[in-house]
Formats: sequence, C-alpha cells, structure tokens
Amino acid sequence: MAIQIPRGTQDILPGDVETWQWIEQKAYDLCRRYNYQEIRVPMFEHTELFLRGVGDTTDIVQKEMYTFEDRGGRSLTLRPEGTASVTRAYVSNKLYGQANQPTKLFYIGPMFRYERPQSGRMRQFVQFGVEALGSADPAIDAEVLALVMRFYEELGLKNLKLVINSLGDTDSRLAHREALVNHFKPRIHEFCNDCQDRLEKNPLRILDCKKDRDHELMGTAPSIHDYLSTESKAYFEKVQSYLTALNIPFVVDATLVRGLDYYNHTAFEVMVDGEAFGAITTLCGGGRYNGLVEEIGGPETPGIGFALSIERAIMALEAQQAKPAHNQAIDCYVVTLGEAAKDKGVELVYQLRNAGISAEKDYLDRKMKGQLKAADRLHAKWTVILGEDELAVGKVNVKNMETGEQTDVALTDLVSHMKQQVEGGNES
Amino acid sequence: MAIQIPRGTQDILPGDVETWQWIEQKAYDLCRRYNYQEIRVPMFEHTELFLRGVGDTTDIVQKEMYTFEDRGGRSLTLRPEGTASVTRAYVSNKLYGQANQPTKLFYIGPMFRYERPQSGRMRQFVQFGVEALGSADPAIDAEVLALVMRFYEELGLKNLKLVINSLGDTDSRLAHREALVNHFKPRIHEFCNDCQDRLEKNPLRILDCKKDRDHELMGTAPSIHDYLSTESKAYFEKVQSYLTALNIPFVVDATLVRGLDYYNHTAFEVMVDGEAFGAITTLCGGGRYNGLVEEIGGPETPGIGFALSIERAIMALEAQQAKPAHNQAIDCYVVTLGEAAKDKGVELVYQLRNAGISAEKDYLDRKMKGQLKAADRLHAKWTVILGEDELAVGKVNVKNMETGEQTDVALTDLVSHMKQQVEGGNES
Repeated sequence: MAIQIPRGTQDILPGDVETWQWIEQKAYDLCRRYNYQEIRVPMFEHTELFLRGVGDTTDIVQKEMYTFEDRGGRSLTLRPEGTASVTRAYVSNKLYGQANQPTKLFYIGPMFRYERPQSGRMRQFVQFGVEALGSADPAIDAEVLALVMRFYEELGLKNLKLVINSLGDTDSRLAHREALVNHFKPRIHEFCNDCQDRLEKNPLRILDCKKDRDHELMGTAPSIHDYLSTESKAYFEKVQSYLTALNIPFVVDATLVRGLDYYNHTAFEVMVDGEAFGAITTLCGGGRYNGLVEEIGGPETPGIGFALSIERAIMALEAQQAKPAHNQAIDCYVVTLGEAAKDKGVELVYQLRNAGISAEKDYLDRKMKGQLKAADRLHAKWTVILGEDELAVGKVNVKNMETGEQTDVALTDLVSHMKQQVEGGNES
Repeated sequence: MAIQIPRGTQDILPGDVETWQWIEQKAYDLCRRYNYQEIRVPMFEHTELFLRGVGDTTDIVQKEMYTFEDRGGRSLTLRPEGTASVTRAYVSNKLYGQANQPTKLFYIGPMFRYERPQSGRMRQFVQFGVEALGSADPAIDAEVLALVMRFYEELGLKNLKLVINSLGDTDSRLAHREALVNHFKPRIHEFCNDCQDRLEKNPLRILDCKKDRDHELMGTAPSIHDYLSTESKAYFEKVQSYLTALNIPFVVDATLVRGLDYYNHTAFEVMVDGEAFGAITTLCGGGRYNGLVEEIGGPETPGIGFALSIERAIMALEAQQAKPAHNQAIDCYVVTLGEAAKDKGVELVYQLRNAGISAEKDYLDRKMKGQLKAADRLHAKWTVILGEDELAVGKVNVKNMETGEQTDVALTDLVSHMKQQVEGGNES
C-alpha cells in the first residue's frame, strides 16, 4: 500500500514551487535593501527554550508543540515559531557584542504546530520573519512595519490593513494587569477553564480567548490605553507619527493583544480585507519584546520583529487573483534520430548546459514526433535536430520555435551559436 | 542561565550565510540548465516510509533516526535523507502520470541523523540532491553524474574523484548474494554482531562494515563484476562510454556498495583528495534505485539520484582555500544631525529602499562621528549627510566614499540622484 504524507503537511511541487521561489526572492531583495541579514537556526531546540521564550501559558506551548526525547534523553521541540530561536542564537553567539548594532536579522523556514489542519493552517508551515535586536528607537518599530507592508505591496496584494496597539512598558503592564484581575475576578467562574487559569498567570490573554469572546465583561474590560505611562504614550505616539510621515495607513486597536507572552510596547497585525478570503484575515503578527533576551539568558536588550506565513500570503494572492504566472520555458531541446546521433545528443546537451543554456533531450527512446511533442510541452524556445545525415556532414538544424526560422549550424559551432541566440533573446 | 543550542546542530550566521546562499544559487542555476525542478517535501514522514524506503538493515534506520509520536499517536520520523520522501511524493502526487517524463526533481534542505557529532557530521545537516524518475536510459545516469561533477567544478573545487560501480540487476544481485553468503558463512562467527545479522538479511552490506574491514575474507570476497548479467554489463559499459565522451574522468571500484539497501545498477561516490581535508573524503553518494517506487506503493519505475552535504562542500572549499569572499557593502548610509533631521532621515531611507537601493541609518542616537563609523563598518558606498542647516535649505550632502567626491543634492532629488549613482556604479 502507498504511504501517505503526514496529516497537516504538504508537498510543494513543480508548478507551485515557482511561486514560493518568487516570494522568497522578494523577501531576500527587500531585506537586502532594508539591511536585514539572513540567519538560519536549527529545526528543533531544547524544549526549555520555548517554555521560557514563548510562554508557558500560551496555546502554542500548552497544546501545539511537537516535543520528543532524542536518543540521549534530551527533550527537544520542533520550533513552533522563530523569535525564540533567533533570540537564543543572538545570545549563544554573543551577537550583542558585534560592532554593527542594532542586529537586524531575517529568516525564512518551516515552523511546526500540532493544530487542527484547515485552510491556511498547516502543521508544517513556512514563516518569513525579521528581528531587530538592540535598539529601543521608535524609528525601528516604524522600519519593521514599513518592511512588512512593503513586502505585501511588492507581492501585489491590495486591501491590506495595518492594526497597531501599545502594550506599554513594565509599569503600564503591571497597572493594567491589576485592573484586569479586579475586573474579571468577581465573575471568573463564568469563564472557561483556560481563562480561569489565565486570571493569575496572564490575565491579558483572557482578552484573546475565542470561547469567551462574547462575554459581557469583555467589552467593558479596562483598556491598556488608560494605564500607559507617560513614556509609553510618547513612544507609541512617535511610532504613529513616523507611520504618518511614511504615508503608511494604520488603525489603532486597543484590544489587540497577540498570542505570545513576551510582547510589550508596539504590537501589530496585518490583515487582508476581502470576502473571497473567508475567515482567515490575519496575515502577519509582530511586536516589541524588550524582556525576551534577558529571559533567554542574555543581557538586557530591546527587540522587535514580525513573522508571517508564506502559505497565507499565497492564499491571499490567489483570492485576489494576483498570483503571477511563472515562465518555465527551456532554451533548447535536442532532437536526435538513430543511435549515433543520440550519443552525440548526450554530448550536445552537456556542452549547452555548461555554457549556461537550459537544454533537454529525450531519455525514453521516443521517435522524432514524440521528441518534438516533448520539446513543445517544455516550451522549448529552440529545437536542435540531429539525424544520421546531419551527423555525417557535421551539422545540426536549429529551429526558432517562435518564428519558425531554421538554420543549419556546424556541430562545432552549436554552443556559440546558441549562446548568441539565447543572450540576444533575453535582451529583446 | 543561557539556553544552549542542541548538540550536533548549528546556527548559520551573517558572514557565513552568504556562502550558503551562493552555493544554493549555484545549485538552482545548474538545475535550471539541466532541467531539474525543485520539490519541497515535509521535514518529517510516517516512520514506515523510511523502514521501507531506506531499509531496515541500514545504520540510518537502526541507529540514527529521530523518531517520535505526535499528539495523535502516529509514529513520525524527521527525514534522515531525501530520496524516500521524494519517492513518496512522486507516488502520492501521481507524478508518474504527468506528460513530461522522466520526472526530474531536485531538493535542498535539512536532514536529521542522530550520530556522534564530529567534523563534517552534524545531527542536522543540509543536503542538495536530485532524482530522475521514469527512465532506464544509461544516458540519464551519465547526466546525473555530469550534474554533480559540474556542481563541484562550478564551486571551484579541485582534486575530485568520481568512483563508480555497478550493482547489477535483480538476477545479478541474487547470484552475487548467494556467492557472498557461501563465502562468509563458514567463518561468520569471526565477524561482528552486525555482520552476523547482515549475512542473511543483506550480505552485501558486510563489505561496507567499518569494524571488519581488515578481515582476510574481505579482500577475497566474490566481486559483483563476476556475476553481472549480460544486460547489466552492457548497461554499465554504456554509462562508462558516455562519461568518456563527456571527458568526465572516473574510476571503477568493484567494492563500492553504498549504505542504503535500495541501490542497483550504477552506484557512485564523489571523493575529494587532499591531506588538508583529513579523514572525511566522500562528498557525495548516489545511485540507481529501480525497485524503490514499487516498494513505496507506486508503479514499477526506474530511478537514479544523488545527495550531497552542503556542510562538506563548504569544508572542502575551506580546505582548498577556494571559498569566495562575499561583498556585503550597502549602497547608502544616511547620517543625520538633530531631531528634525533624524525624522527626515527615517523618510529618506524608506524612499531609497523602496527605489531598490540598500540604505541604512542610525537607531542608537549616535553622534555624527559614531554614525560615520557605522557607515564605514557597513562599507557604505555613499553617505548622505543631513543636518539642521541642510534641512533648512532642503538639501543633503552626498559623498562617494571611494572617490571622496561630494555633491549637494536637493532633498526632493535624492532618490533619483542615488538611483543614477548606484546603477552607474553597478555597470562599471
């Protein structure tokens, strides 16, 4: 019996993979311009990292991690997100001691969460994220927001909505926390078990609860905005004024909390509007996490970043019919007739490929007609025909498949002839 | 306390990651020319796949897999190699039914083996591999060998050695198997426990044993070459004649077996010669696996491929001092003086970046001297200086850091001016 792919994972096949390559190139080029450099961290970490770095009251840690013991008895976890790992790498490799500061990093790679698979939610999914570590300047909050909005724009997405909030500094958060506990405590028995747990551990996350979202205490809960310290207010205003100066539209939503424990000050989400897209509207989330590096065992360091799902970006492109077609044409197909010509064909494609030309030939002993069909299916721009007669006189016939134009070319000149054709064609 | 990276894994940091990006670009470009298309398969599969597709007598399956149960009780395994997964994807997605045949695929990504970490052997490592499924033409064996040799050559590696062998077809293998059992059986008690197991399960793998390599029966073991069927011999000779025609040097080694169970006909390794490289000399392994697709539950399909470790390729480049330097210079650093100029600077870098220019500014409230130093560390090609005076008259000072040449440019013209400079600079 055939073995199935694991539930919640997918193969990305030729025909689709070109979209992924295109998006990744966009991300690479954008990060080059914004001066973010790539970092690659392992697919798994010690479980302890995510308990500390994501937060043990989060759904991710409580319900969604792929945790296992290796053969040496260590508890390892497939990374459910990138920030904890990048922060761990920042500490392990003492990047805080480098001359170039802040440390501006990006990553693209798979993440793993054991969730109920549904449209736009896979157990293995790919995130593109950036992290800027070492600066508490509101200008870098604006830079990170500008980068993510620009990313979606350069992909060609429309109807984007940037939602921002401030979660304040430690003092603001403590004051707000106390107010939340006082607000929910008298009626906490009306809430779900998770929320009852959250009340003492992390009452902010009650606001994020999907089960209790319609409880009347939700709407009247104290807003963080009433508890922001003067400094936190000024910080948040400065971020907003930069966004205005950059002509990046945004809305402030005081209820935006984000699912991870480590956020403070700026928190944000990018949503996409549109009926075609159904229930999934959040494309990207992020925020500032000034306490995280210390939590992981490093020096006190401010940080801010975002993570976005490539799968969801593709879904949004599809919903908006904005996914570009990708040209998969090859340059040259070498058609051969007879055994001697076939052997020579193996040499010709080798020489063409080594000269930078994409070339293909038959490997199924197809007759001439079948080879021409194969050339057609690969959208070959030129076909090179080599039969016994041509081989005898040391020539091939080269046909431009677009114009139908044919030329006889000496075998020894084929590579330089095709190089000229291909390079000329690319310039036009 | 700081959390450590898991044993046998590594962070790839800026400064090193550029080498990885460069190698990947080489692989992508080569595969484009050879008409192999990318496939991306999940990081884990049902464990059953590797038991069947790698072989349950192999070290990989017996000792090295990261196997765990997910929260639904399924046994999953982090992929220890790529061929089994790609073959599974070929079957799951019915790629054998596509019009373009053979199906020519490549992959680049992490693999996981629980081994004793040592130089060139990590628990998470990255493989580049290709698989050509659906053709039993010796020309495609030659193509795959040509591709891998070309890959290393285009990286700039020298002193490469291609070692090939034929393991024959089923009849050849059965005859050889019987001869091996007869050869070893009388004295199998002198061999290690693993070899005693292998005698009945897979006697070919005795030849691969590291513990018993010096036993006198090893040197006198029957050679597969004495048991090759006429067809197998003809196939192997054709592969060799193609390599000769392509001027690809090779040696035949009748003892080359490869660690995986599924190989038949052509098997090969690429080695690198050189004292600087120490004990690790095998860079790449591969071969033909005509029975594997059926084993996974698909139709009878011939296949051939290779896999190579990027880590080892980099080690070889380093040993040969052939690793290229990568230019990390940014185009433009915007230096600002005073609060109003700083805010304007945020806008300027945003506009420059959106116009395709890599640009950076300060986010640490550094004074002018500190900003100029930062620009220097980033090897900025131009600095743009904006103080209160310049802001008042709507101008900036642009300095070419190579020539020292300075120009005053109107703020509103900066983006177009810099675009000209950068594009002009790239052409020269």
